[in-house]
Amino acid sequence: MRLDLKAEKRRREQTRTLVEACDRRDCLLSGQVSSCSLALPGCSMTSQKKLQGLVAATVTPMTQDREINLAVIGQYVDYLVNEQGVRSVFVNGTTGEGLSLSIQERKQLAEEWVAKGKEKLDHVIVHVGALSLPESKELAKHAAEIGVDGIAVIAPSFFKQVNKDALLAFLRDVASEAPGIPFYYYHIPPLTGIQINAEELLDGMTEQIPSFQGVKFSDRNLLDFGRCAAKNSSGQFALLYGVDEQLLSALAMGATGAVGSTYNYFGKANNVMMEAFAKGDFCTAQKYQFCIQEFLGFVIAQGFGVPQIKAVMSLVSGIPMGPPRLPLSSASEEFVAKVRAKLEGLKNCSYHLL
Amino acid sequence: MRLDLKAEKRRREQTRTLVEACDRRDCLLSGQVSSCSLALPGCSMTSQKKLQGLVAATVTPMTQDREINLAVIGQYVDYLVNEQGVRSVFVNGTTGEGLSLSIQERKQLAEEWVAKGKEKLDHVIVHVGALSLPESKELAKHAAEIGVDGIAVIAPSFFKQVNKDALLAFLRDVASEAPGIPFYYYHIPPLTGIQINAEELLDGMTEQIPSFQGVKFSDRNLLDFGRCAAKNSSGQFALLYGVDEQLLSALAMGATGAVGSTYNYFGKANNVMMEAFAKGDFCTAQKYQFCIQEFLGFVIAQGFGVPQIKAVMSLVSGIPMGPPRLPLSSASEEFVAKVRAKLEGLKNCSYHLL
Amino acid sequence: MRLDLKAEKRRREQTRTLVEACDRRDCLLSGQVSSCSLALPGCSMTSQKKLQGLVAATVTPMTQDREINLAVIGQYVDYLVNEQGVRSVFVNGTTGEGLSLSIQERKQLAEEWVAKGKEKLDHVIVHVGALSLPESKELAKHAAEIGVDGIAVIAPSFFKQVNKDALLAFLRDVASEAPGIPFYYYHIPPLTGIQINAEELLDGMTEQIPSFQGVKFSDRNLLDFGRCAAKNSSGQFALLYGVDEQLLSALAMGATGAVGSTYNYFGKANNVMMEAFAKGDFCTAQKYQFCIQEFLGFVIAQGFGVPQIKAVMSLVSGIPMGPPRLPLSSASEEFVAKVRAKLEGLKNCSYHLL
Amino acid sequence: MRLDLKAEKRRREQTRTLVEACDRRDCLLSGQVSSCSLALPGCSMTSQKKLQGLVAATVTPMTQDREINLAVIGQYVDYLVNEQGVRSVFVNGTTGEGLSLSIQERKQLAEEWVAKGKEKLDHVIVHVGALSLPESKELAKHAAEIGVDGIAVIAPSFFKQVNKDALLAFLRDVASEAPGIPFYYYHIPPLTGIQINAEELLDGMTEQIPSFQGVKFSDRNLLDFGRCAAKNSSGQFALLYGVDEQLLSALAMGATGAVGSTYNYFGKANNVMMEAFAKGDFCTAQKYQFCIQEFLGFVIAQGFGVPQIKAVMSLVSGIPMGPPRLPLSSASEEFVAKVRAKLEGLKNCSYHLL
Repeated sequence: MRLDLKAEKRRREQTRTLVEACDRRDCLLSGQVSSCSLALPGCSMTSQKKLQGLVAATVTPMTQDREINLAVIGQYVDYLVNEQGVRSVFVNGTTGEGLSLSIQERKQLAEEWVAKGKEKLDHVIVHVGALSLPESKELAKHAAEIGVDGIAVIAPSFFKQVNKDALLAFLRDVASEAPGIPFYYYHIPPLTGIQINAEELLDGMTEQIPSFQGVKFSDRNLLDFGRCAAKNSSGQFALLYGVDEQLLSALAMGATGAVGSTYNYFGKANNVMMEAFAKGDFCTAQKYQFCIQEFLGFVIAQGFGVPQIKAVMSLVSGIPMGPPRLPLSSASEEFVAKVRAKLEGLKNCSYHLL
Repeated sequence: MRLDLKAEKRRREQTRTLVEACDRRDCLLSGQVSSCSLALPGCSMTSQKKLQGLVAATVTPMTQDREINLAVIGQYVDYLVNEQGVRSVFVNGTTGEGLSLSIQERKQLAEEWVAKGKEKLDHVIVHVGALSLPESKELAKHAAEIGVDGIAVIAPSFFKQVNKDALLAFLRDVASEAPGIPFYYYHIPPLTGIQINAEELLDGMTEQIPSFQGVKFSDRNLLDFGRCAAKNSSGQFALLYGVDEQLLSALAMGATGAVGSTYNYFGKANNVMMEAFAKGDFCTAQKYQFCIQEFLGFVIAQGFGVPQIKAVMSLVSGIPMGPPRLPLSSASEEFVAKVRAKLEGLKNCSYHLL
Repeated sequence: MRLDLKAEKRRREQTRTLVEACDRRDCLLSGQVSSCSLALPGCSMTSQKKLQGLVAATVTPMTQDREINLAVIGQYVDYLVNEQGVRSVFVNGTTGEGLSLSIQERKQLAEEWVAKGKEKLDHVIVHVGALSLPESKELAKHAAEIGVDGIAVIAPSFFKQVNKDALLAFLRDVASEAPGIPFYYYHIPPLTGIQINAEELLDGMTEQIPSFQGVKFSDRNLLDFGRCAAKNSSGQFALLYGVDEQLLSALAMGATGAVGSTYNYFGKANNVMMEAFAKGDFCTAQKYQFCIQEFLGFVIAQGFGVPQIKAVMSLVSGIPMGPPRLPLSSASEEFVAKVRAKLEGLKNCSYHLL
Repeated sequence: MRLDLKAEKRRREQTRTLVEACDRRDCLLSGQVSSCSLALPGCSMTSQKKLQGLVAATVTPMTQDREINLAVIGQYVDYLVNEQGVRSVFVNGTTGEGLSLSIQERKQLAEEWVAKGKEKLDHVIVHVGALSLPESKELAKHAAEIGVDGIAVIAPSFFKQVNKDALLAFLRDVASEAPGIPFYYYHIPPLTGIQINAEELLDGMTEQIPSFQGVKFSDRNLLDFGRCAAKNSSGQFALLYGVDEQLLSALAMGATGAVGSTYNYFGKANNVMMEAFAKGDFCTAQKYQFCIQEFLGFVIAQGFGVPQIKAVMSLVSGIPMGPPRLPLSSASEEFVAKVRAKLEGLKNCSYHLL
């Protein structure tokens, strides 16, 4: 199938001209041009409060008898802002054991984060997903009433035969309870088992959900992610990557930010990495990424779920996050000891990390 | 296709007599009696109201706008008893879209089934499992208050790293809210992804949950099932198989009954199969099982989930079960047409089935 | 632990007599006889040498340097026949590490089994499957030349996108190299990942492969298995179940025999179970099945693959089966010690088992 | 669309000069140079013939009766070099249906590629992996005899319980048959099901296999990949990424090259992308990656395996690659028509691609 080579050559020259008008380097230096897809603060859009950079998926502090502990949330906010340079949070998500809480508890937590985050945090995003549509709607309505900066919804995952249209309808019904609040779709197929590409959902969401503002993308499928990024050429929405241990690869593919549990304690290190990437300084970016990976590879090999995240966060921040709620069980003391030793042993890396 | 109710009543009385002659413990000790772990009604225990035989996992009737439709439940009870010979139900389970409903809706449904089932049904088992422990406890408490005949709990499945002890603790906490109500563990690893053998959980449950009465076992792993049966030598609990399309294989391995969605419309056929099996008439038992499989193999190949179950039940019973709630979407008209044709085309089998 | 050979011979003769009275077709038409799809030797067909009963999936004996050890195969044959009452073998299959051997080695092994099995074994089935069609054809041709009693072929499993027609064409091409030799399809989706129902393949095989004689069905999907059995109403082919630890459930669903690694050392126990089942004595059948399951559940929980099978067989038979070939590694001494203790500790069961 | 060969040669020479100025180790220590783990040709090591850049995983041309077609390999070599700018090949791998061929055929193909590639190709890497260790060793020995530039071995995947030490022993035994030939480990867990991190294997391979030179890494787990890259700080081995549709993300994580089937026809486009990346021109790199993804996302949604790769390659190159061998079946005509239309319809992208 040989192409007509002359026509092709002409066409390519025209395109090249077009392309020269879009000088990415300008974008990178000035921060004025929107179409590079980087995580550079301000590199993209109009909205004063566009969600970008690092977003901590917060744990839910609990007392020793596994009840929610609202008392430490003020301290938690200060720690994130002052110690980690993280000014946005994702509350009641997977890390926050949102689906293990009652509706009432989820509301209380959302209220506390909004109250304590006032004038300190840029974005308090509240996850309002639930298996039950009426409950998810109730949570969305409440979130709007208390003035959150965004709501997010995971695909309901008890049934696996969910199709694209039904999922869109579910998301739309929830979003419509909070029409003025930015809506984020929380895409995490490895956990939900719902295998619908984010890219396929994007068109539907931008059309059907006026408040749609972005995706928390927690999957290793960077073909799907890249196709979302390709549709985000004017930076119209947030593409927040959610597989923390390989963030650098997603930045290269067009991530505009990141949501994850590790930003609770590795916020600083990831901020440096993202800045290095934005400046084109790959050596530094890789150095930080590899350090982060050395630690995360280690804990993942031990089994790294919410109980372990809570333990690491308690250890690093000094704030008592407590045990997880059932059906999860506390991280072992052996795990905590190993983590402590690993952090100390990361001679070449640990100053980057903490 | 109404059953002759008098004959039916007579048959049940005869069975009861027959059963008294069959002392399960004798069978196990002497090895002389052949029907030792069978689903013969009453072949095992002391309790007047031991759960056994077929239990219909009920669908939740909905209106066209996907709200619960309590109005048809009375009719539904009569259909099960009179047309299908099924006198026990499992409400708000997977088939009943329990986790897609609000807590309030689940309570309303439980109340309606208890009310309409009075003096008609032998057992109204209400599923009270939820991802959230406080919600599950609230439901268990309510179930006890309204006088259900049993509660059942599925493993909370959002997090997959649940271990045996934590799962037991979760189940125990729920059961303790309804201490006088028989407790059933709902084991369904293919759906929950929680891969803990039922046999491993059994010891813990018999020790820690005084109200423990049995397992709804929805898995093809008949090694695990057989090991449960081996622990049930005096018939102390119910072993209810839940993979409808291969029930006969589980009867051979010690099932004492069955819970499933297909008993809504294939109750009669399965009752005949179970009776044939109990009498040692394998030819008849297989004949019925193979007919049932011909139909179920056909619909499973089309994709057979809750929406399709609702459609089949509406078609066969004539009671409008309505669409499923989001995130599920209605079965296609094409599916319904195929089912209708298949049922008619099952020349050699359909008289067994309907 | 030698069987009383005279008593054994007598038992086999009696069974044969019993069997002549059982005409399978009568059973199916009249519905009067209860044991219609059973594994009763001879209960079904015309062919004098129909494959039925237990078939041992043999391990491949190896020397300490992991080379095949032909020297012990004569002893192996005698052990199976005299100690286990097993008179058919499945050579070079999964248990036999067939795909880890060279073509030349597979031929040598087939030759040795045929030679040593002469006038001792009823059936020497040789597995000739390979990832490569030309190699599989070469093996089939060789098997025919040396006079095996049957060949078997697994689905080539490197590529997972194999469709039904292509798989049938592959099987047909292999079978056509040995047109006079009974052909068995080896169905094992959990290992191959090729998810095509056996029942769908059956029609194609009976039409396209004149030498087709049966299926080794190694899957827990007993809907699929039952649908095969329903197509086997006149006992025209062998339905050999291959998930040893739940054989009883498959007998109930129409299995006509069994192929598996555990029949190397639990042949006797399984023979008793099958006979009890055939006589309708469920108490005894379950008793044996549960004993077998207690042992197999234990070893499966330790990790039970070919290396462990070889170790168990060496321990029980006293014949040195040696280590497996790379990429497999030997069972640990700890495993062997545990197995030894478990066999001794099975107080209530061990007399059934060994 | 022939490349200007002289210009191309000049470009390559310049790059080499440029590269000499770029000392990777300096980069890593000083942090001043931005392109530290890049795929810049020559940016790393001493060896004159270090494998880097794009490596085409070649299809195996076949005649209409599915026999290997050696006749077109000369033409194939010229196409890759002249039309795609690809000068290294990976022969008899997954794309090449290596495991579907006989040992004899694999040898013939290796010989033909070496013969036709002489003075045209930089690297002819021959995959010599097999399920059977003796066969894999035989192939390695042959490859050494005919003077290939490297051998590669996939994990034998029939058994899934392979552990790290046994896998290393298997690889070492194969490598030792070709001690003077660079050895590459072919890591592809999604296909083999062998879930051992490449990073864990690295230490073992560098210690035990003197000829070890690198990894073809075909997995989306970029934590594992990054940890390999962190161990490659002095560029001592090749890290060749193998998930073509997301190559850019792996470049960011330290890939030094890429092996894949799409470089047969998208070599040029990927070369431009890699060069843009190496220069820090992310706008251009993303633009090319997104174009490539638009096409690959489309074909993957149709089902994109070896048959479809062969069809695309036949279409784009004009060289008749023929059907695949059984158990694979030819791509449908409908697929080919869709691909043709898609390529034409990629208005904004196709000039980049072809």
